[in-house]
Amino acid sequence: MLDFEFFNPTRLIFGKSKHKEIGSLVKPYAKKILLHYGSGSIKRTGVYDDVVASLKENEVEFVELGGVVPNPRLSLVYEGIELCRKENIGFILAVGGGSVIDSAKAIAMGVPFDGDVWDLYVTRKEVEKVLPVATILTIPAAGSESSNSSVITNEETQLKLGYGSDKIRPAFSIINPELFVTLPEEQLAYGVCDMMSHIMERYFTNTLHTDLIDGLCESTLKTIMKNALLLKENYNNYDAWAEVSLAGNIAHNGLLGVGREGDWASHAMEHELSAIYDVPHGAGLAVVTPAWMKYVYKTNVPMFAQFAVNVMGVEGSLREPEDLALEGIKRLEEFFVKMGLPIRMPELGIDETNLELMAEMATGGNRGKESTIGKLKKLDKDDVLAIYKLAF
Amino acid sequence: MLDFEFFNPTRLIFGKSKHKEIGSLVKPYAKKILLHYGSGSIKRTGVYDDVVASLKENEVEFVELGGVVPNPRLSLVYEGIELCRKENIGFILAVGGGSVIDSAKAIAMGVPFDGDVWDLYVTRKEVEKVLPVATILTIPAAGSESSNSSVITNEETQLKLGYGSDKIRPAFSIINPELFVTLPEEQLAYGVCDMMSHIMERYFTNTLHTDLIDGLCESTLKTIMKNALLLKENYNNYDAWAEVSLAGNIAHNGLLGVGREGDWASHAMEHELSAIYDVPHGAGLAVVTPAWMKYVYKTNVPMFAQFAVNVMGVEGSLREPEDLALEGIKRLEEFFVKMGLPIRMPELGIDETNLELMAEMATGGNRGKESTIGKLKKLDKDDVLAIYKLAF
Repeated sequence: MLDFEFFNPTRLIFGKSKHKEIGSLVKPYAKKILLHYGSGSIKRTGVYDDVVASLKENEVEFVELGGVVPNPRLSLVYEGIELCRKENIGFILAVGGGSVIDSAKAIAMGVPFDGDVWDLYVTRKEVEKVLPVATILTIPAAGSESSNSSVITNEETQLKLGYGSDKIRPAFSIINPELFVTLPEEQLAYGVCDMMSHIMERYFTNTLHTDLIDGLCESTLKTIMKNALLLKENYNNYDAWAEVSLAGNIAHNGLLGVGREGDWASHAMEHELSAIYDVPHGAGLAVVTPAWMKYVYKTNVPMFAQFAVNVMGVEGSLREPEDLALEGIKRLEEFFVKMGLPIRMPELGIDETNLELMAEMATGGNRGKESTIGKLKKLDKDDVLAIYKLAF
Repeated sequence: MLDFEFFNPTRLIFGKSKHKEIGSLVKPYAKKILLHYGSGSIKRTGVYDDVVASLKENEVEFVELGGVVPNPRLSLVYEGIELCRKENIGFILAVGGGSVIDSAKAIAMGVPFDGDVWDLYVTRKEVEKVLPVATILTIPAAGSESSNSSVITNEETQLKLGYGSDKIRPAFSIINPELFVTLPEEQLAYGVCDMMSHIMERYFTNTLHTDLIDGLCESTLKTIMKNALLLKENYNNYDAWAEVSLAGNIAHNGLLGVGREGDWASHAMEHELSAIYDVPHGAGLAVVTPAWMKYVYKTNVPMFAQFAVNVMGVEGSLREPEDLALEGIKRLEEFFVKMGLPIRMPELGIDETNLELMAEMATGGNRGKESTIGKLKKLDKDDVLAIYKLAF
């Protein structure tokens, strides 16, 4: 086990109708807030009305900024920063999924920052001061409601970059599983793939002596798969949404990565897909992750055999660990297919045109200097290109 | 799954030599602190010297209060409160195990409290203000380094009472597994039993649809047992200490109890054993817990069968779940015996003299009004007496 620090001060408020308490929860923090949301689905589902009613009841003033889209845009972040400065706002409430929350975090960093907030994403310099952010989660997927990270797309340069700091963990987050039944079914699939990826990026490691976190990762992955399939049968299953959304939270709150080296190559490779083709993050991950596995598993066959046996339920001879490993990868693909996810590039509408460019961008091109990605196996541009090609 | 809130803002700093960084970690909080510890083992092991050197290097003044004993005493808490007030101290560093940390938390509540701190333990009223506490853990067991609870013994009245509030979670805690190799071997056994009990008190529940937390509990229990046995073979196994101590932290930081009703009858019954006979908490739990299981398992046979199969590795017919349940309890006892723990009252030097009194105290007598304990099966005085007798 490696040395580590873990700090997650986000208060998690979980359960039925909890979003209706938002006004009294916000009140101790601020009298006037920015209410940040997406394309307006919260208005169709009634969540917006619930939130506004609770804010008004508690005499919390708010200024609105909607319009966040998947792969949230830097231009809207700039707009939010301007708005908060003009309106003298010191608290941001994000009502939405990971995109809305990531956008809120970017605004929260940008308002007190003396400079261009995008530079933080490029340089990864530690931010000094951040406005407090709270969230009401409407899509269980990204885990941003408790995570220390934010991913923003600069639409001018087609760059999608992540930033991480414990300072941008939300002050509190509300997860009400009742809200998820109105999601389009593909959102469940994308969300499940995203949260599974957050675990697998941490799980696949060369670090030894990681019993506890291995076990926690494995049982969280199994919970997600079991309950995702239950939701395919009955989309109104509250308890299954509760399991999936709590698992999605734990998947990315940092706990499942302590004491071990994470990989994160699949996320880096996917970011280029969604930066250039604007595909849903979860869909891109379903395509890239199995290809990554096929390319790297020989680096650490026992790790992939353990995944096959302990997560995917593969039975077989431990004397043939490579067979186990390959069967595990196959089962993961089969699960993705069951969930209705794409597992090959053409299903995303991606051809070979930009593979070279994406491979270059993924391996440091997006930050202006060549580098490798991944830790289980360090991948250079040629490796990444080979993985992209394996996904056809 | 039940609705819940989870808030754990304790920063966990984990790894080799980390306790030597204490001075720079404390400095942002206070210029003068109370250094609280136990019977002096930290002086023999060199931890005290490391801490003092780091505090001095960082120009942090300190006043010392040692002498905390297992089942920490109210009288020393009073002494600590007086000392902090006299010396104008606003930050407490606990260097020790759960007893020292619980004592530090009590002092931290008492200093700003206008009244007798013991009343908080009796009435369980929410505390308003608490001094910040930090810890350097020297015994992995109680989980108090991240927990929201403190248990204090009033030696005048022989009452041992617990108090819980998120406000008493430490600001930060240092776990350096290197420190544990100097512990007497029985401390490992007691600690392992205590942390397993913290999980089992939460795990055994009538709440349904608890897949995720069930799985996390089960894999944490398995990790503890596996690595505890590794330590019996080689007491210098750093990675095994790392697994055990991280598991002990997670066992009691609250995560493994979210969304479910916990039981906590075994802890309540054990508190009377250690209040009257001053037995080590972990030893008392090893005696009480299997007896509790034998008495209550029929209330929820499937839960105990799941424990048997998923935690204790019992194989057998699911059509005979009661057989599985009983075999699981037997295996738990066998594990305790392997660890050198007592599993019957006489091994603790306890005879039948005080059973009635203890049963009465456990079921509300200690707080002056009759009540039941436990949630899986509500237990009254007669039930508790029967369980104590089953432990002979």
